[in-house]
Amino acid sequence: MKRIKLGIIGLGNMGTSHARKIFDEKCPELELVAVSDKMQERLDWAKSEFGDKVCGFSDAVEMLDSKLIEAVLIASPHYDHPPLVIAALERGIHVLCEKPAGVYTKQVREMNEAAERSGLVFSMMFQQRTQPAFRKMRELISSGALGNIRRAGWIITNWYRPQSYYDSGAWRATWSGEGGGVLLNQCPHNLDLMQWICGMPDKIHAHCHIGKWHNIEVEDDVTAYMEFPGGATGTFITSTGDAPGTNRFEIALDKGKLVCEDNKDLTLWELGLTEQEFSKTAKRAFNRQEVTKVSYDFPVNEDPHMKIAHNFANAILNKTPLLADGREGINGLTLSNAMYLSSWTDSEVLLPIDEELYYNELMKRAKTSKFKNVASVVTSTEGSY
Amino acid sequence: MKRIKLGIIGLGNMGTSHARKIFDEKCPELELVAVSDKMQERLDWAKSEFGDKVCGFSDAVEMLDSKLIEAVLIASPHYDHPPLVIAALERGIHVLCEKPAGVYTKQVREMNEAAERSGLVFSMMFQQRTQPAFRKMRELISSGALGNIRRAGWIITNWYRPQSYYDSGAWRATWSGEGGGVLLNQCPHNLDLMQWICGMPDKIHAHCHIGKWHNIEVEDDVTAYMEFPGGATGTFITSTGDAPGTNRFEIALDKGKLVCEDNKDLTLWELGLTEQEFSKTAKRAFNRQEVTKVSYDFPVNEDPHMKIAHNFANAILNKTPLLADGREGINGLTLSNAMYLSSWTDSEVLLPIDEELYYNELMKRAKTSKFKNVASVVTSTEGSY
Repeated sequence: MKRIKLGIIGLGNMGTSHARKIFDEKCPELELVAVSDKMQERLDWAKSEFGDKVCGFSDAVEMLDSKLIEAVLIASPHYDHPPLVIAALERGIHVLCEKPAGVYTKQVREMNEAAERSGLVFSMMFQQRTQPAFRKMRELISSGALGNIRRAGWIITNWYRPQSYYDSGAWRATWSGEGGGVLLNQCPHNLDLMQWICGMPDKIHAHCHIGKWHNIEVEDDVTAYMEFPGGATGTFITSTGDAPGTNRFEIALDKGKLVCEDNKDLTLWELGLTEQEFSKTAKRAFNRQEVTKVSYDFPVNEDPHMKIAHNFANAILNKTPLLADGREGINGLTLSNAMYLSSWTDSEVLLPIDEELYYNELMKRAKTSKFKNVASVVTSTEGSY
Repeated sequence: MKRIKLGIIGLGNMGTSHARKIFDEKCPELELVAVSDKMQERLDWAKSEFGDKVCGFSDAVEMLDSKLIEAVLIASPHYDHPPLVIAALERGIHVLCEKPAGVYTKQVREMNEAAERSGLVFSMMFQQRTQPAFRKMRELISSGALGNIRRAGWIITNWYRPQSYYDSGAWRATWSGEGGGVLLNQCPHNLDLMQWICGMPDKIHAHCHIGKWHNIEVEDDVTAYMEFPGGATGTFITSTGDAPGTNRFEIALDKGKLVCEDNKDLTLWELGLTEQEFSKTAKRAFNRQEVTKVSYDFPVNEDPHMKIAHNFANAILNKTPLLADGREGINGLTLSNAMYLSSWTDSEVLLPIDEELYYNELMKRAKTSKFKNVASVVTSTEGSY
């Protein structure tokens, strides 16, 4: 079997986990040959763990220039995703990038243009797209069997974090270091899945509450309302302060209803006729249609991260279609950017958003951010590629 | 046993049901002695059903003036509730009124002032307040054992109605005949319970969709966001177009969570410490508290309407405290008035609302209403008392 030589940028929580699994051949098509991290301590850890077979670099671009790797997995802080993706693609290196795609869509749009030009494989680590329940929801809806979506609501308040989480990294939950709070750190999956399953809304009105439950400068509590081009409405409710929280995604359609709880328990209620057909013909004022209820019993989805890695490798080796095309990362990010913008301007936001306005408003906040180091880090990153 | 002589105004769906039950002594403290309805057909029905023991009146005020009754149950169209309540109280007659309290709060405020002056018993038919699940939620929250409310959300989309429902009465779902749609006809219970359990919000932003699923001039689909004085947020989502709909009321608190489904299935998740205490002391970034889950198993609540009737009678006979003081009807109505006003002005509304503005905006809509008869009916009603 042909194995793809892989480098990993960033040995933080996610990069470390991915490095271990790939080194242990959990995705045998990928061969870990290099890692990069700015902190010597993390490189020392990699050396002790992986030995001399895996080359350590303190500079990501040196690793990209080293000719050692054919593909790279990017698990750096969010602001650095687009410049690193672009740097890799420009060097002919396939890219698998951790979510979110970036912090602001203007930057991500440039990344997507580079991906288009490159003809290389570019995937995003949206591993929740491998969950059977979400795949089934998307399949049922896109087949048209349930008619059009009328209402979509996700209560995703089970991202609980104590204050110690936010205190564990100076960059965390700062405008300059991370670029946002719960919407940018915890919710990229949910925002991606919502657009993957329901399509993109064209109007958003959001209420983002800053440091409501924690001592942080970004939002930890959000309620957003949205409208879709077909007329459907939606809500998205999230928080890192609720304990215990809820994870309940409900979609009402012309011909039934889908509810997914905890990313796995999917129930379908299906009608014989669309509501419109029934409404026209029902003779009695309180008539209701009979409904069939199906509770799906899916097998446990083992290691979704490695499923995405496997799909990424197969896209390179065999041109297998991507489960999560990297260029689609802009969609979920557009949703969170729109939610911030709505909250900052205290008004409804139409999509596509004004990307310049968003960038300027974000930079205003980054300038007064508590995490003072980062402005220079971001600058130096941009200067490098 | 002393029995209270009762009259019923309006033999529509609700009035007819109440009349039958009270005649059949389902609430033995009340004795049905008179009914009034503008339609001769309904009086003929009452005569055939109840015989000569129950006096029929084509005019409600004649019945109030007849000296036959000590108490009245008002089940007329919504616009007539306040003037009829006032007319009864002014004649020394105790009142049990169907919800909603009225159509606009300005009118209901006058009704409440009359109730204050009268010293008589005035109750509202909020029979859902007798549901064990809602009583338990209120008890748990008001005891303070779960701390403050952080988030309250009710998805109450199981008010499905086909077009034939709206076509079954010319006054239905018109601004002049009924004064609103799903918020005014179907949701008074839910809006009352929400304020009864969570208190009143001070800010509302709502999106009311007019005739989205039916050929009607009022709203049949609403998503509202609210903020409470203590800092909690809330959502209220309703529709008469979803099939099958959902009835799920979730409240997140400092020390746990309550979820009530279908007005009866209540689950409590309780924490040992408040989230605030835990957050301050949790050492590890991904720590979570253990939680105790309790699923309540309540007995079926038999005939909630007659429970309210019984309580009303006992308040007259024995000064038993009311389960649903009539003066509290203004609260739920304030919520729906605020939701309309927010939607009409496309902006956030602060509570208390501008009642004059609301009245003027409502009358604008009533003037161009499809139900042309009603302006005169409302006028003649107002002229009578």
